[in-house]
Amino acid sequence: MAKDKKMVDAITSMDEDFAKWYTDICMKAELVSYTSVKGCMVIRPYGYAIWENIQHILDTKFKELGHENVCMPMFIPESLLQKEKDHVEGFAPEVAWVTYGGSEKLEDRLCVRPTSETLFCEHYANIVHSYRDLPKLYNQWVSVVRWEKTTRPFLRSREFLWQEGHTIHETPEEAIEETERMLNVYADFCEQQLAVPVVKGRKTESDKFAGAEATYAIEALMHDGKALQAGTSHYFGDGFAKAFDITYTGRDNKLAHPFQTSWGVTTRLIGAVIMTHGDDNGLVLPPAVAPVQVVIVPIAQHKEGVLDKANELYNTLKNAGIRVKLDDSEQSPGWKFAQYEMKGVPVRLEIGPKDIENDQCVLVTRHNREKVFCKLGELVETVNERLQAVHDGLYAKALENRERRTYVCKTLDEITKALEEKGDGFVKAMWCGDEACEDKVKELTGVGSRCIPFEQEEIADTCVCCGKPAKHMVLWGKAY
Amino acid sequence: MAKDKKMVDAITSMDEDFAKWYTDICMKAELVSYTSVKGCMVIRPYGYAIWENIQHILDTKFKELGHENVCMPMFIPESLLQKEKDHVEGFAPEVAWVTYGGSEKLEDRLCVRPTSETLFCEHYANIVHSYRDLPKLYNQWVSVVRWEKTTRPFLRSREFLWQEGHTIHETPEEAIEETERMLNVYADFCEQQLAVPVVKGRKTESDKFAGAEATYAIEALMHDGKALQAGTSHYFGDGFAKAFDITYTGRDNKLAHPFQTSWGVTTRLIGAVIMTHGDDNGLVLPPAVAPVQVVIVPIAQHKEGVLDKANELYNTLKNAGIRVKLDDSEQSPGWKFAQYEMKGVPVRLEIGPKDIENDQCVLVTRHNREKVFCKLGELVETVNERLQAVHDGLYAKALENRERRTYVCKTLDEITKALEEKGDGFVKAMWCGDEACEDKVKELTGVGSRCIPFEQEEIADTCVCCGKPAKHMVLWGKAY
Repeated sequence: MAKDKKMVDAITSMDEDFAKWYTDICMKAELVSYTSVKGCMVIRPYGYAIWENIQHILDTKFKELGHENVCMPMFIPESLLQKEKDHVEGFAPEVAWVTYGGSEKLEDRLCVRPTSETLFCEHYANIVHSYRDLPKLYNQWVSVVRWEKTTRPFLRSREFLWQEGHTIHETPEEAIEETERMLNVYADFCEQQLAVPVVKGRKTESDKFAGAEATYAIEALMHDGKALQAGTSHYFGDGFAKAFDITYTGRDNKLAHPFQTSWGVTTRLIGAVIMTHGDDNGLVLPPAVAPVQVVIVPIAQHKEGVLDKANELYNTLKNAGIRVKLDDSEQSPGWKFAQYEMKGVPVRLEIGPKDIENDQCVLVTRHNREKVFCKLGELVETVNERLQAVHDGLYAKALENRERRTYVCKTLDEITKALEEKGDGFVKAMWCGDEACEDKVKELTGVGSRCIPFEQEEIADTCVCCGKPAKHMVLWGKAY
Repeated sequence: MAKDKKMVDAITSMDEDFAKWYTDICMKAELVSYTSVKGCMVIRPYGYAIWENIQHILDTKFKELGHENVCMPMFIPESLLQKEKDHVEGFAPEVAWVTYGGSEKLEDRLCVRPTSETLFCEHYANIVHSYRDLPKLYNQWVSVVRWEKTTRPFLRSREFLWQEGHTIHETPEEAIEETERMLNVYADFCEQQLAVPVVKGRKTESDKFAGAEATYAIEALMHDGKALQAGTSHYFGDGFAKAFDITYTGRDNKLAHPFQTSWGVTTRLIGAVIMTHGDDNGLVLPPAVAPVQVVIVPIAQHKEGVLDKANELYNTLKNAGIRVKLDDSEQSPGWKFAQYEMKGVPVRLEIGPKDIENDQCVLVTRHNREKVFCKLGELVETVNERLQAVHDGLYAKALENRERRTYVCKTLDEITKALEEKGDGFVKAMWCGDEACEDKVKELTGVGSRCIPFEQEEIADTCVCCGKPAKHMVLWGKAY
């Protein structure tokens, strides 16, 4: 009971200490738990169920688009990792090395995959011979390891779960189209399922994936005004194919190198959901990925007929395909309200003797505590309408936060002033394309380049930093 | 084209070289591919799709029984692994050790999990405090690593995919009930979905899981007469709880140690399917897990109306929830027949101009090449009936193989003679319970104890080896 109570103790307020608030939610909503493996975490049932919902929606979409799941080894021999120069430089400093198998020292040590381009390339070289073998559209759901120094649940951990798509094509056009298509899949997923608005764009040269010709990303703005990269999609050209000697006989009967992509999203998306929608009462989950969409809390449940009716409503909702939970435990309704608010259940259904008399129940939406009465004969329609209202409300609120915290600036001074006066946020400002200016903006204002948005705006003719002619409008921000 | 042709080249006959036949199927049915990571493999789309079907069926069943999925770290610190004496002795010699993170040497080296009891125990100690917290019924779908010396696709590889269930209970009775329940889930799955008959039983002391009080297993007999352990379920008593200091306050308000189980099946099940049902034309898949249940091969597809009709049938089957593929590529029907026989597609549907005239199609079942004509108006029912016929046929054939190769023996001589005359198989013989006799039987006859079947038979009063009073009937065999 002491433990139960602790669960619904107030959490740190987000305005007081956002980082602490975030960790409190991760723990008190029972999403994760720490382990003695430094930088790694247990994803607990409630957290993992969110990931399973994310997986299910994305996996279905990937398959609709013709992708097939595979599974590569979790180890990469050092000699294989070293085949693509930029790639090994980018990843080698942050991998975990297996040096012993049992008591035997390994000749070629193995890294635990930080990403699997090298393994896919080796496999392509084995199975791709003719243009008839192309494209291959592969994906895998696995965990990867990157030896990070500072870690936070979901946002940055030494091991994390992700999907990595890997595709190989006849032409650069096809590969680029795939790179863009998958970025759009991610963007649509974030906006339509997670209710997290994102900006789509291209990373600058300095921020590309190790070995890529171009990296596209979606960037979201968290409640505290910091930016979170929510997904990336890379176009590799034929660089990996050349490094790994992947060739195929083309339609013209000549040997050629194919063109590749990769793209991924991670359990970081759960971090994005927490920091976009959560509030001082806990987690707030978008209905599409909420493990429980509706929780039924009976009022005065000892009174005759209440639990029967609650069970009846449970069955009605369950049969309609809604993820519903009935909590008929002996805790008080007040305790249950707080508990399911902490866990971010989108809709609470209250049903008591008076409601039954009036042939109605009460529906309360988590994000705004709006209360509506619902005729029991219209239960499924009303609940679905409420779930949609939660999604729409979350999206609108997140978009409003982002708009309010997006600052259009023409000078470095304007950037500094906006951040000081209005707090962290996205900055839109022009850039000449020179890496020195990119670095200087970060040094002087604290915001780094997040991406070059596909939707460009003409804010000025000149670079915000050096005054030379501008090439792009860049979205700048402080990143998680 | 050369490559395509190779795919349907004949494979080694199973009677000639069973091991080579097995590997040929793994490669030519495109289930796996080798990598430069010794002892690890790529599971290719067709192989992985079988695993996804296995996952989906089992995961649904686990959840119906109240289990929740979680995800533990893939690493175990050496100090944590060492907490349970038997467990570390059993696993430490065969684990992969991570000794460096980036360029930094680790103080406490990490093994890549060979199994996750230790991590679950650490987590339980954190989250279990009261009897109200029990039971916890957890499962995870991950890969594990064991540094095997000789490896074979699916049967024994350094990394393999599996699910590991881990549960913790108030009483030994509950935990034992869970151990048995999950063994039954595995047995039912093997028989009803994979069409693989199994014997349920308990492992002898020498063959128990490291740290278990009792290990239950299901044993299947492969086509070559060798035994394959297809799933295990372990009862731990409170041994792990004591070693990891997991306590809870009981209903009597006293501190107590809870009782644990774990249970798992692996990608080995795919090996079991291959070696139970496959034949000299390739793989034969049970319909429940076949990625493609029905392949439509149009005959004379250039003729007017054939492809239209084939597409119509495709849509009819697809809408009925059947996993169907239409191959309208330019390969010849004969090539396609061989190709999909190699891939083990349970039912082939042929449709040509004459069939269309007669308002029928031809259905051919993979395992026995039985041909039936099917009225197009009865397509879905007939196809479902054919799929059931494949399942039933496969099960009956596998059972017949097992019965024919199960030898009831009263003496060691009888065992030797049976194996010599009739080939490898299961031996049923009595045992006194003494480990020395168990070892001696293996030494003298080549068959080891597979399990003590739950369904005991009274073959004799005395041990097959020493002649002392018998305690159990044991199932003996040569194991994969």
